[in-house]
Amino acid sequence: MITSTSNQKVRQVVQWQTKAKERKKADIFLAEGFKMLEEAPAEWIREIYLSEECLDKAKDNPLIWRKLLQTGYETVSEEVFRKMSDTQTPQGILTVLKRPQYHLEELLDRENPLFVVLEDLQDPGNLGTIVRTGEGAGITGVIMSVGTVDIFNPKVIRATMGSVYRVPFVYMENLADTLGILHKKGIHTYAAHLKGEKYYDSFSFQEPTAFLIGNEGNGLKKETADMAEHYLKIPMEGQVESLNAAIATALLMYEAHRQRI
Amino acid sequence: MITSTSNQKVRQVVQWQTKAKERKKADIFLAEGFKMLEEAPAEWIREIYLSEECLDKAKDNPLIWRKLLQTGYETVSEEVFRKMSDTQTPQGILTVLKRPQYHLEELLDRENPLFVVLEDLQDPGNLGTIVRTGEGAGITGVIMSVGTVDIFNPKVIRATMGSVYRVPFVYMENLADTLGILHKKGIHTYAAHLKGEKYYDSFSFQEPTAFLIGNEGNGLKKETADMAEHYLKIPMEGQVESLNAAIATALLMYEAHRQRI
Repeated sequence: MITSTSNQKVRQVVQWQTKAKERKKADIFLAEGFKMLEEAPAEWIREIYLSEECLDKAKDNPLIWRKLLQTGYETVSEEVFRKMSDTQTPQGILTVLKRPQYHLEELLDRENPLFVVLEDLQDPGNLGTIVRTGEGAGITGVIMSVGTVDIFNPKVIRATMGSVYRVPFVYMENLADTLGILHKKGIHTYAAHLKGEKYYDSFSFQEPTAFLIGNEGNGLKKETADMAEHYLKIPMEGQVESLNAAIATALLMYEAHRQRI
Repeated sequence: MITSTSNQKVRQVVQWQTKAKERKKADIFLAEGFKMLEEAPAEWIREIYLSEECLDKAKDNPLIWRKLLQTGYETVSEEVFRKMSDTQTPQGILTVLKRPQYHLEELLDRENPLFVVLEDLQDPGNLGTIVRTGEGAGITGVIMSVGTVDIFNPKVIRATMGSVYRVPFVYMENLADTLGILHKKGIHTYAAHLKGEKYYDSFSFQEPTAFLIGNEGNGLKKETADMAEHYLKIPMEGQVESLNAAIATALLMYEAHRQRI
Protein backbone atom coordinates (compact mmCIF):
# COMPACT_ATOMS: atom_id res chain seq x y z
CA MET A 1 0.00 0.00 0.00
CA ILE A 2 1.21 3.49 -0.86
CA THR A 3 1.21 5.72 2.23
CA SER A 4 3.42 8.59 1.09
CA THR A 5 2.19 11.50 -1.02
CA SER A 6 5.72 11.86 -2.37
CA ASN A 7 5.52 8.42 -3.98
CA GLN A 8 6.45 8.63 -7.66
CA LYS A 9 3.14 7.19 -8.93
CA VAL A 10 1.09 9.49 -6.72
CA ARG A 11 2.97 12.54 -7.96
CA GLN A 12 2.42 11.38 -11.53
CA VAL A 13 -1.37 11.10 -11.02
CA VAL A 14 -1.50 14.56 -9.40
CA GLN A 15 0.28 15.95 -12.48
CA TRP A 16 -2.21 14.21 -14.76
CA GLN A 17 -5.11 15.66 -12.76
CA THR A 18 -3.92 19.21 -13.18
CA LYS A 19 -1.87 19.38 -16.40
CA ALA A 20 -3.47 18.83 -19.81
CA LYS A 21 -0.01 18.68 -21.40
CA GLU A 22 1.14 15.83 -19.14
CA ARG A 23 -2.03 13.86 -19.83
CA LYS A 24 -1.49 14.33 -23.54
CA LYS A 25 2.18 13.32 -23.38
CA ALA A 26 1.23 10.08 -21.62
CA ASP A 27 -1.76 9.57 -23.97
CA ILE A 28 -4.04 8.92 -20.98
CA PHE A 29 -6.95 10.38 -19.06
CA LEU A 30 -8.31 9.87 -15.55
CA ALA A 31 -11.75 8.83 -14.40
CA GLU A 32 -12.90 8.72 -10.77
CA GLY A 33 -15.63 6.71 -9.11
CA PHE A 34 -17.28 3.33 -9.34
CA LYS A 35 -19.60 4.07 -12.23
CA MET A 36 -16.72 5.35 -14.37
CA LEU A 37 -14.76 2.13 -13.81
CA GLU A 38 -17.82 -0.11 -14.27
CA GLU A 39 -18.54 1.38 -17.67
CA ALA A 40 -14.91 1.71 -18.83
CA PRO A 41 -14.03 -0.43 -21.88
CA ALA A 42 -11.65 -3.09 -20.50
CA GLU A 43 -9.09 -2.51 -23.25
CA TRP A 44 -8.71 1.18 -22.32
CA ILE A 45 -7.81 0.57 -18.66
CA ARG A 46 -4.16 1.05 -17.75
CA GLU A 47 -3.98 1.47 -13.96
CA ILE A 48 -6.42 1.49 -11.03
CA TYR A 49 -5.91 3.15 -7.64
CA LEU A 50 -8.07 2.37 -4.63
CA SER A 51 -8.21 3.88 -1.19
CA GLU A 52 -7.83 1.39 1.63
CA GLU A 53 -11.46 1.86 2.77
CA CYS A 54 -12.72 1.39 -0.75
CA LEU A 55 -11.22 -2.06 -1.29
CA ASP A 56 -13.94 -3.99 0.59
CA LYS A 57 -16.66 -2.14 -1.29
CA ALA A 58 -14.89 -2.97 -4.55
CA LYS A 59 -14.73 -6.66 -3.69
CA ASP A 60 -18.51 -6.70 -3.27
CA ASN A 61 -19.00 -5.41 -6.82
CA PRO A 62 -18.40 -8.26 -9.31
CA LEU A 63 -18.04 -5.93 -12.33
CA ILE A 64 -15.43 -3.82 -10.52
CA TRP A 65 -13.67 -6.79 -8.95
CA ARG A 66 -13.18 -8.50 -12.32
CA LYS A 67 -11.61 -5.36 -13.72
CA LEU A 68 -9.35 -5.00 -10.69
CA LEU A 69 -8.13 -8.57 -11.13
CA GLN A 70 -7.63 -8.18 -14.89
CA THR A 71 -5.68 -4.93 -14.66
CA GLY A 72 -4.08 -5.21 -11.24
CA TYR A 73 -4.48 -2.39 -8.76
CA GLU A 74 -2.69 -0.35 -6.18
CA THR A 75 -4.13 0.52 -2.78
CA VAL A 76 -3.27 3.85 -1.19
CA SER A 77 -4.00 5.39 2.22
CA GLU A 78 -6.99 7.71 2.63
CA GLU A 79 -4.67 10.70 2.90
CA VAL A 80 -2.85 9.77 -0.31
CA PHE A 81 -6.13 9.24 -2.14
CA ARG A 82 -7.42 12.67 -1.14
CA LYS A 83 -4.23 14.09 -2.64
CA MET A 84 -4.71 12.13 -5.89
CA SER A 85 -8.38 12.98 -6.26
CA ASP A 86 -9.86 15.90 -8.17
CA THR A 87 -13.08 15.88 -6.12
CA GLN A 88 -13.93 17.21 -2.67
CA THR A 89 -15.60 14.00 -1.54
CA PRO A 90 -13.64 11.26 -3.35
CA GLN A 91 -15.29 7.89 -3.93
CA GLY A 92 -11.91 6.25 -3.38
CA ILE A 93 -11.37 4.74 -6.82
CA LEU A 94 -9.42 6.24 -9.70
CA THR A 95 -8.78 4.74 -13.12
CA VAL A 96 -6.06 5.68 -15.59
CA LEU A 97 -7.21 5.03 -19.16
CA LYS A 98 -5.67 5.09 -22.60
CA ARG A 99 -7.22 7.77 -24.80
CA PRO A 100 -9.44 6.72 -27.66
CA GLN A 101 -8.55 8.06 -31.10
CA TYR A 102 -11.29 8.84 -33.62
CA HIS A 103 -11.08 10.17 -37.16
CA LEU A 104 -13.56 12.47 -38.83
CA GLU A 105 -13.78 10.11 -41.82
CA GLU A 106 -15.12 7.21 -39.78
CA LEU A 107 -17.70 9.46 -38.11
CA LEU A 108 -18.88 10.74 -41.47
CA ASP A 109 -19.49 7.20 -42.70
CA ARG A 110 -22.20 6.51 -40.10
CA GLU A 111 -25.74 6.20 -41.39
CA ASN A 112 -27.78 9.41 -41.30
CA PRO A 113 -25.35 11.22 -38.99
CA LEU A 114 -26.31 13.72 -36.30
CA PHE A 115 -23.39 15.85 -35.11
CA VAL A 116 -22.83 18.69 -32.73
CA VAL A 117 -20.02 21.04 -33.71
CA LEU A 118 -18.66 23.09 -30.80
CA GLU A 119 -16.56 26.20 -31.26
CA ASP A 120 -14.32 27.22 -28.36
CA LEU A 121 -16.64 26.05 -25.58
CA GLN A 122 -14.82 26.83 -22.33
CA ASP A 123 -16.88 25.40 -19.49
CA PRO A 124 -15.95 21.79 -18.60
CA GLY A 125 -19.42 21.15 -17.16
CA ASN A 126 -21.05 22.30 -20.39
CA LEU A 127 -18.92 20.02 -22.58
CA GLY A 128 -19.41 17.01 -20.31
CA THR A 129 -23.16 17.60 -20.15
CA ILE A 130 -23.35 17.90 -23.95
CA VAL A 131 -21.59 14.55 -24.38
CA ARG A 132 -23.93 12.91 -21.83
CA THR A 133 -27.09 14.44 -23.31
CA GLY A 134 -25.76 13.72 -26.79
CA GLU A 135 -25.56 10.01 -26.11
CA GLY A 136 -29.13 10.18 -24.76
CA ALA A 137 -30.32 11.92 -27.92
CA GLY A 138 -28.48 9.43 -30.13
CA ILE A 139 -25.90 11.69 -31.76
CA THR A 140 -23.19 10.29 -34.02
CA GLY A 141 -20.36 12.33 -32.57
CA VAL A 142 -19.01 15.62 -31.29
CA ILE A 143 -16.76 17.79 -33.48
CA MET A 144 -14.81 20.46 -31.61
CA SER A 145 -12.55 23.37 -32.50
CA VAL A 146 -9.03 23.08 -31.06
CA GLY A 147 -9.92 26.07 -28.84
CA THR A 148 -12.56 24.02 -27.02
CA VAL A 149 -11.84 22.90 -23.44
CA ASP A 150 -9.89 19.61 -23.20
CA ILE A 151 -12.42 16.76 -23.23
CA PHE A 152 -9.98 14.79 -21.02
CA ASN A 153 -10.17 17.45 -18.29
CA PRO A 154 -11.31 15.57 -15.14
CA LYS A 155 -14.32 17.89 -14.73
CA VAL A 156 -15.49 17.12 -18.28
CA ILE A 157 -15.00 13.38 -17.78
CA ARG A 158 -17.05 13.47 -14.56
CA ALA A 159 -19.89 15.45 -16.16
CA THR A 160 -20.13 12.93 -19.04
CA MET A 161 -21.21 10.27 -16.48
CA GLY A 162 -19.61 7.60 -18.69
CA SER A 163 -20.85 8.81 -22.06
CA VAL A 164 -17.27 9.78 -22.97
CA TYR A 165 -16.67 6.03 -23.43
CA ARG A 166 -19.36 5.78 -26.07
CA VAL A 167 -19.71 9.06 -27.95
CA PRO A 168 -16.93 9.56 -30.53
CA PHE A 169 -15.30 12.98 -30.78
CA VAL A 170 -12.67 14.81 -32.81
CA TYR A 171 -10.83 18.12 -32.47
CA MET A 172 -10.41 20.00 -35.76
CA GLU A 173 -7.85 22.70 -36.57
CA ASN A 174 -10.16 24.72 -38.78
CA LEU A 175 -13.89 24.59 -38.21
CA ALA A 176 -14.83 26.54 -41.36
CA ASP A 177 -12.94 23.98 -43.48
CA THR A 178 -14.59 21.17 -41.52
CA LEU A 179 -18.03 22.56 -42.34
CA GLY A 180 -17.00 22.47 -46.01
CA ILE A 181 -16.22 18.75 -45.64
CA LEU A 182 -19.59 18.13 -43.95
CA HIS A 183 -21.41 19.93 -46.77
CA LYS A 184 -19.64 17.82 -49.41
CA LYS A 185 -20.85 14.73 -47.57
CA GLY A 186 -24.43 16.02 -47.74
CA ILE A 187 -24.65 16.97 -44.06
CA HIS A 188 -26.82 20.02 -43.44
CA THR A 189 -25.42 22.55 -40.98
CA TYR A 190 -27.55 24.64 -38.62
CA ALA A 191 -26.09 27.45 -36.53
CA ALA A 192 -27.79 28.62 -33.35
CA HIS A 193 -27.33 32.30 -34.08
CA LEU A 194 -28.83 35.75 -33.55
CA LYS A 195 -29.28 35.95 -37.34
CA GLY A 196 -31.75 33.05 -37.11
CA GLU A 197 -35.24 34.02 -38.13
CA LYS A 198 -36.93 30.63 -37.90
CA TYR A 199 -37.45 28.67 -34.71
CA TYR A 200 -35.49 25.44 -34.32
CA ASP A 201 -38.59 23.25 -34.40
CA SER A 202 -39.69 24.52 -37.80
CA PHE A 203 -36.75 22.80 -39.54
CA SER A 204 -36.57 19.14 -40.49
CA PHE A 205 -33.56 17.33 -39.07
CA GLN A 206 -34.40 13.96 -40.59
CA GLU A 207 -31.59 14.29 -43.14
CA PRO A 208 -27.91 14.21 -42.06
CA THR A 209 -27.56 17.12 -39.62
CA ALA A 210 -24.91 19.07 -37.72
CA PHE A 211 -25.68 21.72 -35.08
CA LEU A 212 -23.15 24.52 -34.59
CA ILE A 213 -22.77 25.94 -31.10
CA GLY A 214 -20.47 28.85 -30.27
CA ASN A 215 -18.48 29.97 -27.25
CA GLU A 216 -20.46 30.71 -24.06
CA GLY A 217 -19.69 34.43 -24.06
CA ASN A 218 -19.05 35.30 -27.70
CA GLY A 219 -21.07 32.83 -29.75
CA LEU A 220 -19.77 31.64 -33.13
CA LYS A 221 -16.91 33.38 -34.93
CA LYS A 222 -18.04 35.25 -38.03
CA GLU A 223 -16.08 33.04 -40.44
CA THR A 224 -17.64 29.92 -38.93
CA ALA A 225 -21.19 31.31 -38.82
CA ASP A 226 -20.79 32.45 -42.45
CA MET A 227 -20.17 28.85 -43.50
CA ALA A 228 -23.41 27.53 -41.94
CA GLU A 229 -26.16 26.51 -44.31
CA HIS A 230 -29.02 27.60 -42.02
CA TYR A 231 -29.50 29.83 -38.97
CA LEU A 232 -31.99 28.94 -36.34
CA LYS A 233 -33.19 30.46 -33.10
CA ILE A 234 -34.68 29.18 -29.89
CA PRO A 235 -37.68 31.17 -28.64
CA MET A 236 -37.02 33.11 -25.44
CA GLU A 237 -39.59 34.83 -23.28
CA GLY A 238 -38.97 37.61 -20.78
CA GLN A 239 -35.62 39.37 -20.91
CA VAL A 240 -33.54 36.28 -21.60
CA GLU A 241 -30.91 37.01 -24.25
CA SER A 242 -29.39 33.56 -24.53
CA LEU A 243 -29.55 30.12 -23.00
CA ASN A 244 -26.72 28.18 -21.41
CA ALA A 245 -24.73 26.42 -24.17
CA ALA A 246 -25.48 22.91 -22.89
CA ILE A 247 -29.19 23.71 -22.57
CA ALA A 248 -29.40 25.13 -26.11
CA THR A 249 -27.54 22.12 -27.51
CA ALA A 250 -29.83 19.73 -25.61
CA LEU A 251 -32.97 21.35 -27.02
CA LEU A 252 -31.61 21.03 -30.58
CA MET A 253 -30.41 17.44 -30.19
CA TYR A 254 -33.68 16.29 -28.64
CA GLU A 255 -35.72 18.06 -31.32
CA ALA A 256 -33.73 16.06 -33.90
CA HIS A 257 -34.29 12.89 -31.88
CA ARG A 258 -38.04 13.61 -31.69
CA GLN A 259 -38.20 13.97 -35.47
CA ARG A 260 -36.11 10.88 -36.18
CA ILE A 261 -37.80 8.22 -34.03
CA MET B 1 -11.90 54.36 -0.63
CA ILE B 2 -11.66 51.20 1.46
CA THR B 3 -8.13 49.77 1.34
CA SER B 4 -8.18 47.40 4.30
CA THR B 5 -9.59 43.87 4.19
CA SER B 6 -10.33 44.16 7.91
CA ASN B 7 -12.79 46.99 7.26
CA GLN B 8 -16.14 46.22 8.91
CA LYS B 9 -18.16 46.43 5.68
CA VAL B 10 -15.72 44.23 3.80
CA ARG B 11 -15.87 41.58 6.51
CA GLN B 12 -19.66 41.74 6.41
CA VAL B 13 -19.74 41.11 2.62
CA VAL B 14 -17.31 38.20 2.95
CA GLN B 15 -19.66 36.68 5.54
CA TRP B 16 -22.61 37.16 3.23
CA GLN B 17 -20.72 35.48 0.37
CA THR B 18 -20.05 32.37 2.38
CA LYS B 19 -22.80 32.04 5.00
CA ALA B 20 -26.41 31.39 4.01
CA LYS B 21 -27.51 32.11 7.59
CA GLU B 22 -25.94 35.55 7.63
CA ARG B 23 -27.53 36.43 4.30
CA LYS B 24 -30.88 35.32 5.64
CA LYS B 25 -30.51 37.26 8.89
CA ALA B 26 -29.80 40.44 6.94
CA ASP B 27 -32.56 39.63 4.42
CA ILE B 28 -30.18 40.30 1.51
CA PHE B 29 -28.35 38.60 -1.32
CA LEU B 30 -25.31 39.50 -3.40
CA ALA B 31 -24.95 39.83 -7.15
CA GLU B 32 -21.67 40.44 -8.97
CA GLY B 33 -20.96 41.98 -12.34
CA PHE B 34 -22.30 44.70 -14.62
CA LYS B 35 -25.17 42.73 -16.10
CA MET B 36 -26.50 41.83 -12.67
CA LEU B 37 -26.54 45.49 -11.60
CA GLU B 38 -27.97 46.69 -14.93
CA GLU B 39 -30.93 44.35 -14.62
CA ALA B 40 -31.47 44.73 -10.86
CA PRO B 41 -34.82 46.30 -9.90
CA ALA B 42 -33.89 49.74 -8.48
CA GLU B 43 -36.02 49.25 -5.37
CA TRP B 44 -34.12 46.08 -4.40
CA ILE B 45 -30.66 47.69 -4.37
CA ARG B 46 -29.15 48.39 -0.94
CA GLU B 47 -25.40 48.88 -1.41
CA ILE B 48 -22.92 48.87 -4.30
CA TYR B 49 -19.18 48.18 -4.10
CA LEU B 50 -16.80 49.02 -6.93
CA SER B 51 -13.13 48.32 -7.40
CA GLU B 52 -11.02 51.40 -8.14
CA GLU B 53 -10.29 50.25 -11.71
CA CYS B 54 -13.95 49.58 -12.33
CA LEU B 55 -15.17 53.09 -11.57
CA ASP B 56 -14.26 54.62 -14.95
CA LYS B 57 -15.92 51.77 -16.78
CA ALA B 58 -19.01 52.28 -14.63
CA LYS B 59 -19.13 55.99 -15.46
CA ASP B 60 -19.24 55.13 -19.17
CA ASN B 61 -22.36 53.00 -18.66
CA PRO B 62 -25.41 55.28 -18.24
CA LEU B 63 -27.63 52.53 -16.81
CA ILE B 64 -25.02 51.63 -14.19
CA TRP B 65 -24.05 55.21 -13.48
CA ARG B 66 -27.64 56.22 -12.74
CA LYS B 67 -27.96 53.36 -10.27
CA LEU B 68 -24.68 54.30 -8.61
CA LEU B 69 -25.86 57.87 -8.12
CA GLN B 70 -29.28 56.79 -6.86
CA THR B 71 -27.97 54.31 -4.31
CA GLY B 72 -24.57 55.74 -3.52
CA TYR B 73 -21.50 53.51 -3.76
CA GLU B 74 -18.27 52.63 -2.07
CA THR B 75 -14.97 52.18 -3.92
CA VAL B 76 -12.48 49.63 -2.69
CA SER B 77 -8.92 48.73 -3.71
CA GLU B 78 -8.32 45.84 -6.13
CA GLU B 79 -6.98 43.70 -3.32
CA VAL B 80 -10.04 44.35 -1.15
CA PHE B 81 -12.38 43.60 -4.06
CA ARG B 82 -10.69 40.26 -4.73
CA LYS B 83 -11.32 39.41 -1.07
CA MET B 84 -15.01 40.41 -1.33
CA SER B 85 -15.64 38.58 -4.59
CA ASP B 86 -16.89 35.04 -5.01
CA THR B 87 -15.39 34.68 -8.50
CA GLN B 88 -11.86 33.96 -9.68
CA THR B 89 -11.85 36.80 -12.20
CA PRO B 90 -14.02 39.49 -10.57
CA GLN B 91 -15.66 42.11 -12.76
CA GLY B 92 -15.10 44.64 -9.98
CA ILE B 93 -18.71 45.45 -9.14
CA LEU B 94 -20.81 43.92 -6.38
CA THR B 95 -24.39 44.74 -5.43
CA VAL B 96 -26.16 44.01 -2.15
CA LEU B 97 -29.89 43.53 -2.71
CA LYS B 98 -32.96 43.14 -0.56
CA ARG B 99 -34.59 39.72 -1.02
CA PRO B 100 -37.89 39.50 -2.85
CA GLN B 101 -40.70 37.73 -1.01
CA TYR B 102 -43.28 35.74 -2.97
CA HIS B 103 -46.29 33.76 -1.78
CA LEU B 104 -47.62 30.58 -3.31
CA GLU B 105 -51.12 32.07 -3.45
CA GLU B 106 -50.12 34.91 -5.77
CA LEU B 107 -48.29 32.49 -8.07
CA LEU B 108 -51.33 30.24 -8.26
CA ASP B 109 -53.49 33.13 -9.38
CA ARG B 110 -51.58 33.64 -12.63
CA GLU B 111 -53.36 32.71 -15.83
CA ASN B 112 -52.69 29.18 -17.09
CA PRO B 113 -49.69 28.63 -14.83
CA LEU B 114 -46.60 26.62 -15.72
CA PHE B 115 -44.51 25.64 -12.70
CA VAL B 116 -41.42 23.64 -11.99
CA VAL B 117 -41.35 21.94 -8.60
CA LEU B 118 -37.86 21.02 -7.43
CA GLU B 119 -37.20 18.54 -4.65
CA ASP B 120 -33.86 18.81 -2.85
CA LEU B 121 -31.83 19.91 -5.86
CA GLN B 122 -28.26 20.38 -4.60
CA ASP B 123 -26.20 21.80 -7.43
CA PRO B 124 -26.18 25.63 -7.51
CA GLY B 125 -25.44 25.65 -11.25
CA ASN B 126 -28.45 23.43 -11.92
CA LEU B 127 -30.84 25.65 -9.95
CA GLY B 128 -29.52 28.86 -11.52
CA THR B 129 -29.73 27.36 -15.01
CA ILE B 130 -33.31 26.18 -14.38
CA VAL B 131 -34.35 29.70 -13.35
CA ARG B 132 -32.65 31.18 -16.45
CA THR B 133 -34.08 28.61 -18.84
CA GLY B 134 -37.45 28.86 -17.05
CA GLU B 135 -37.72 32.56 -17.81
CA GLY B 136 -36.86 31.76 -21.44
CA ALA B 137 -39.59 29.12 -21.58
CA GLY B 138 -42.09 31.44 -19.95
CA ILE B 139 -42.73 29.64 -16.67
CA THR B 140 -44.88 31.17 -13.94
CA GLY B 141 -42.59 30.31 -11.06
CA VAL B 142 -40.32 27.85 -9.30
CA ILE B 143 -41.54 25.91 -6.25
CA MET B 144 -38.80 24.32 -4.17
CA SER B 145 -38.59 21.98 -1.19
CA VAL B 146 -36.81 23.48 1.83
CA GLY B 147 -34.03 20.94 1.20
CA THR B 148 -33.19 22.57 -2.13
CA VAL B 149 -29.96 24.60 -2.39
CA ASP B 150 -30.32 28.24 -1.30
CA ILE B 151 -31.43 30.27 -4.32
CA PHE B 152 -29.50 33.23 -2.85
CA ASN B 153 -26.22 31.28 -2.98
CA PRO B 154 -23.86 33.46 -5.09
CA LYS B 155 -23.28 30.59 -7.57
CA VAL B 156 -27.02 30.21 -8.15
CA ILE B 157 -27.45 33.98 -8.59
CA ARG B 158 -24.64 34.05 -11.16
CA ALA B 159 -26.04 31.11 -13.14
CA THR B 160 -29.47 32.78 -13.36
CA MET B 161 -27.86 35.56 -15.48
CA GLY B 162 -30.44 38.00 -14.07
CA SER B 163 -33.52 35.79 -14.36
CA VAL B 164 -33.65 35.64 -10.54
CA TYR B 165 -34.99 39.21 -10.69
CA ARG B 166 -37.95 38.16 -12.80
CA VAL B 167 -38.93 34.56 -12.06
CA PRO B 168 -40.90 34.25 -8.79
CA PHE B 169 -40.03 31.41 -6.44
CA VAL B 170 -41.12 29.93 -3.12
CA TYR B 171 -39.69 27.37 -0.72
CA MET B 172 -42.29 24.99 0.74
CA GLU B 173 -42.00 22.94 3.93
CA ASN B 174 -43.91 19.96 2.60
CA LEU B 175 -43.90 19.23 -1.10
CA ALA B 176 -46.52 16.45 -0.96
CA ASP B 177 -48.96 18.88 0.71
CA THR B 178 -48.06 21.53 -1.86
CA LEU B 179 -48.95 19.14 -4.68
CA GLY B 180 -52.33 18.69 -3.00
CA ILE B 181 -52.84 22.47 -3.15
CA LEU B 182 -51.84 22.54 -6.83
CA HIS B 183 -54.32 19.76 -7.63
CA LYS B 184 -57.15 21.63 -5.91
CA LYS B 185 -56.35 24.61 -8.10
CA GLY B 186 -56.66 22.43 -11.20
CA ILE B 187 -52.94 22.29 -11.92
CA HIS B 188 -51.85 18.98 -13.43
CA THR B 189 -48.64 17.53 -12.03
CA TYR B 190 -46.13 15.52 -14.06
CA ALA B 191 -43.20 13.73 -12.46
CA ALA B 192 -40.10 12.88 -14.45
CA HIS B 193 -39.76 9.38 -13.07
CA LEU B 194 -38.57 5.87 -13.85
CA LYS B 195 -42.19 4.74 -13.49
CA GLY B 196 -43.04 6.86 -16.54
CA GLU B 197 -44.27 4.82 -19.46
CA LYS B 198 -45.14 7.60 -21.86
CA TYR B 199 -42.69 10.03 -23.40
CA TYR B 200 -42.89 13.65 -22.34
CA ASP B 201 -43.94 14.89 -25.76
CA SER B 202 -47.02 12.66 -25.86
CA PHE B 203 -48.74 14.66 -23.08
CA SER B 204 -50.58 17.92 -23.52
CA PHE B 205 -49.27 20.73 -21.34
CA GLN B 206 -51.73 23.35 -22.58
CA GLU B 207 -53.69 23.20 -19.32
CA PRO B 208 -52.19 24.46 -16.02
CA THR B 209 -49.05 22.37 -15.53
CA ALA B 210 -46.38 21.64 -12.93
CA PHE B 211 -43.27 19.54 -13.60
CA LEU B 212 -41.71 17.68 -10.66
CA ILE B 213 -37.96 17.21 -10.67
CA GLY B 214 -36.11 15.27 -8.00
CA ASN B 215 -32.65 15.39 -6.45
CA GLU B 216 -29.68 14.87 -8.80
CA GLY B 217 -28.61 11.56 -7.26
CA ASN B 218 -31.76 10.12 -5.74
CA GLY B 219 -34.65 11.46 -7.81
CA LEU B 220 -38.01 12.18 -6.16
CA LYS B 221 -38.89 10.89 -2.69
CA LYS B 222 -41.51 8.18 -2.76
CA GLU B 223 -44.13 10.24 -0.90
CA THR B 224 -43.71 13.09 -3.37
CA ALA B 225 -43.72 10.88 -6.47
CA ASP B 226 -46.83 9.12 -5.14
CA MET B 227 -48.69 12.44 -5.13
CA ALA B 228 -47.97 13.16 -8.82
CA GLU B 229 -50.90 12.87 -11.22
CA HIS B 230 -48.81 11.60 -14.17
CA TYR B 231 -45.39 10.06 -14.72
CA LEU B 232 -43.44 10.83 -17.83
CA LYS B 233 -40.11 9.80 -19.26
CA ILE B 234 -37.56 11.33 -21.58
CA PRO B 235 -36.27 8.95 -24.27
CA MET B 236 -32.62 8.01 -23.83
CA GLU B 237 -30.45 6.19 -26.33
CA GLY B 238 -27.25 4.28 -25.61
CA GLN B 239 -26.47 3.47 -22.01
CA VAL B 240 -27.65 6.77 -20.55
CA GLU B 241 -29.65 6.18 -17.37
CA SER B 242 -30.60 9.75 -16.62
CA LEU B 243 -30.05 13.28 -17.82
CA ASN B 244 -28.65 16.19 -15.85
CA ALA B 245 -31.49 17.76 -13.79
CA ALA B 246 -31.28 21.16 -15.52
CA ILE B 247 -31.26 19.50 -18.96
CA ALA B 248 -34.30 17.33 -18.16
CA THR B 249 -36.17 20.35 -16.78
CA ALA B 250 -35.29 22.41 -19.85
CA LEU B 251 -36.63 19.75 -22.22
CA LEU B 252 -39.94 19.63 -20.31
CA MET B 253 -40.34 23.41 -20.01
CA TYR B 254 -39.60 23.96 -23.70
CA GLU B 255 -41.97 21.19 -24.73
CA ALA B 256 -44.70 23.01 -22.76
CA HIS B 257 -43.67 26.29 -24.41
CA ARG B 258 -43.79 24.68 -27.86
CA GLN B 259 -47.34 23.48 -27.20
CA ARG B 260 -48.54 26.77 -25.74
CA ILE B 261 -47.42 29.29 -28.38
